[in-house]
Amino acid sequence: MTDFSATRAMFDLPEGVIYLDGNSLGPMPRAAKMRVAEVVSAEWGEMLITGWNRGWGGRGWMSMPVALGDRIGRLIGAEPGHVVVGDTLSIKVYQALASALEMVPGRKVVLSDSGNFPTDLYMANGLLTSLGHGHELRVVAPEEVEDAITDEVAVLMLTEVDYRTGRRHDMRALTAKVHAQGGLAIWDLAHSAGAFPVDVAGGGADFAVGCTYKYLNGGPGAPAFIYVAPRLADRARPALAGWLGHEAPFAFELDYRPGAGVERMRVGTPPVIQMTALDAALDVWEGVSLEDVRAKSVELSERFIAGVEAACPDLVLASPRDAAGRGSQVSFRFDEGYAVMQALIARGVIGDFRAPDIMRFGFTPLYIDEADVRAAVAILAEIMNNRLWDRPEYKRRAKVT
Amino acid sequence: MTDFSATRAMFDLPEGVIYLDGNSLGPMPRAAKMRVAEVVSAEWGEMLITGWNRGWGGRGWMSMPVALGDRIGRLIGAEPGHVVVGDTLSIKVYQALASALEMVPGRKVVLSDSGNFPTDLYMANGLLTSLGHGHELRVVAPEEVEDAITDEVAVLMLTEVDYRTGRRHDMRALTAKVHAQGGLAIWDLAHSAGAFPVDVAGGGADFAVGCTYKYLNGGPGAPAFIYVAPRLADRARPALAGWLGHEAPFAFELDYRPGAGVERMRVGTPPVIQMTALDAALDVWEGVSLEDVRAKSVELSERFIAGVEAACPDLVLASPRDAAGRGSQVSFRFDEGYAVMQALIARGVIGDFRAPDIMRFGFTPLYIDEADVRAAVAILAEIMNNRLWDRPEYKRRAKVT
Repeated sequence: MTDFSATRAMFDLPEGVIYLDGNSLGPMPRAAKMRVAEVVSAEWGEMLITGWNRGWGGRGWMSMPVALGDRIGRLIGAEPGHVVVGDTLSIKVYQALASALEMVPGRKVVLSDSGNFPTDLYMANGLLTSLGHGHELRVVAPEEVEDAITDEVAVLMLTEVDYRTGRRHDMRALTAKVHAQGGLAIWDLAHSAGAFPVDVAGGGADFAVGCTYKYLNGGPGAPAFIYVAPRLADRARPALAGWLGHEAPFAFELDYRPGAGVERMRVGTPPVIQMTALDAALDVWEGVSLEDVRAKSVELSERFIAGVEAACPDLVLASPRDAAGRGSQVSFRFDEGYAVMQALIARGVIGDFRAPDIMRFGFTPLYIDEADVRAAVAILAEIMNNRLWDRPEYKRRAKVT
Repeated sequence: MTDFSATRAMFDLPEGVIYLDGNSLGPMPRAAKMRVAEVVSAEWGEMLITGWNRGWGGRGWMSMPVALGDRIGRLIGAEPGHVVVGDTLSIKVYQALASALEMVPGRKVVLSDSGNFPTDLYMANGLLTSLGHGHELRVVAPEEVEDAITDEVAVLMLTEVDYRTGRRHDMRALTAKVHAQGGLAIWDLAHSAGAFPVDVAGGGADFAVGCTYKYLNGGPGAPAFIYVAPRLADRARPALAGWLGHEAPFAFELDYRPGAGVERMRVGTPPVIQMTALDAALDVWEGVSLEDVRAKSVELSERFIAGVEAACPDLVLASPRDAAGRGSQVSFRFDEGYAVMQALIARGVIGDFRAPDIMRFGFTPLYIDEADVRAAVAILAEIMNNRLWDRPEYKRRAKVT
């Protein structure tokens, strides 16, 4: 059984804060502070250029993308050696789609849904426009995806968990259907990795991508990851053919030869300092069972839904009521949701808001417990029942949220 | 007059090290240590998600890519508001080339040279293969570039300074020629930015890209930058159409609308911790004249060449003898150059080696002075004249260099 009081002690949350926004940016693991200080002073500062071979405690900074990929691979059910870390999620979506499309050359439809995070759609559209080969990005409502999987579809590209509502797709079933129809599946695990057990191998994903700054707590701007199924990894042509994906990057040859398997999905020089923070954050997962995380997350979420619905009749649940259909967040709708969220933040309960009317609350058992949920419900009820949100300073929109 | 003893004091070089590899990875500015610790503990740790608006001393992490772009813009002669920071140099090369090609739709030739850093060629080749529109990547010898600029050329894509020899192209003349022929020019400033005065605006560059971990001292894996000339910035279509390049990223619209000017070259979530280190490193440039940097760099380089040629007759200068034709590094050839470099490193003189036989030495007046050059020459002479390099431990190749 995972000891969540132990994982909680690994985080350094500010006094008085109930942090229900780990689905957007995970909090700082205590160890990250020291490890980042070390990589800056003791490695960059002292080893200088030799850190590429000697840094990261002797393993070499250059080995981080693959080694951290494996650490993440264990959390998403990937075969060892088939995940690599780098770049941003947007770039990884582009890589996956560009490679996938070439493997289904006769087809022109990329199927996605309107619940996908916009950057996935933007990147797909940018790629298809560049190609100019007559591809169509077909975007349907989330509930229409299954029926829209036909033999026209080259690639099904979905984010497993909806960033607004927490609605969760059935990865295994949808992947099986697109495979039966002769297409490939790309899964964006932004709101899945670290939130619940993911099984990319068992689920049959052809490509999977994700970010590491949400449930994996890698820090602001932490790098992304990409998984390529073993059956495809050695024949995926990388569109973003960077030198670190070359079979022999330090031979400095003029011609590109892709590296083995997923290594070809490396592009440029890895962000060593961010990767060090991520490495420290991944230590938290040692000894953690994702089944336990899921069970506790469901328990906390159910408790939150019940508490809010009982105390705040004006808030409307935006997430699926059935826990099996949700990721690890719960969303409520309210016309003045923006102001309510500001009032919550002013009182130490940090969630976030997505236009036009969605308040999001993430439940991350690594550092959130029942007492937090109880307190958050009480504060939200106080705000709602006394209209404490109805103040000009809560209605003024910040530049970004 | 720039006070180089003041800039030297801003770096924390290890005792006994003469660092002649700032052309590969700049050393740690003292301020980076504290600033990185602050962004981790006081911003990520305390502000959590609100750091996107409140971090970076109240300016908001989200504003860093554009603000740091402007700081770099001043060092490369860019118009304000036309440089943005993010991703890796490989990605920025891809962005620039993808946008440029669409602006010269009738032509099929991308011209580059064999002195370009391989990743630029790999990325170009990856893009052209994806497009499948019959483009040709034409790679000629550096000295043949000028003659190869014909009216077939859509885009001239060059790295200004050769990473092996330090040979420097004439940006202004080659750009003028490609413009006269109706094409566009992309300049990779990896070995230029921070090495000498660059004038992308005056030189007429259409796009310029560069990295920040060499002469700008941003740290291992520091993000790259991209410049788009004002005349093109609002009509360049971004192939990598990420959400942070959207006109209104936080509206989460399903359709992409490019942001104003170079902002559309932003892609995904910026690496806040790396950017903080870079920001600290850019402080070093306040009060520094790049003309002074150049003058001192030439003086140090000439002194080094003269010293080595006098003391080490077996070493052959691989860099142009005329300082006007060089960047800020000096290279020598020697069959056993790898072993010589290991012997140098063992004695605290850090340069690097590029196959098959090139030893590179970077001269960066921010922290290198005449005494360093004298000492480096003496140590190199001792190694050469006593064959101290001829030991098995110096001949064993490390995994990366």
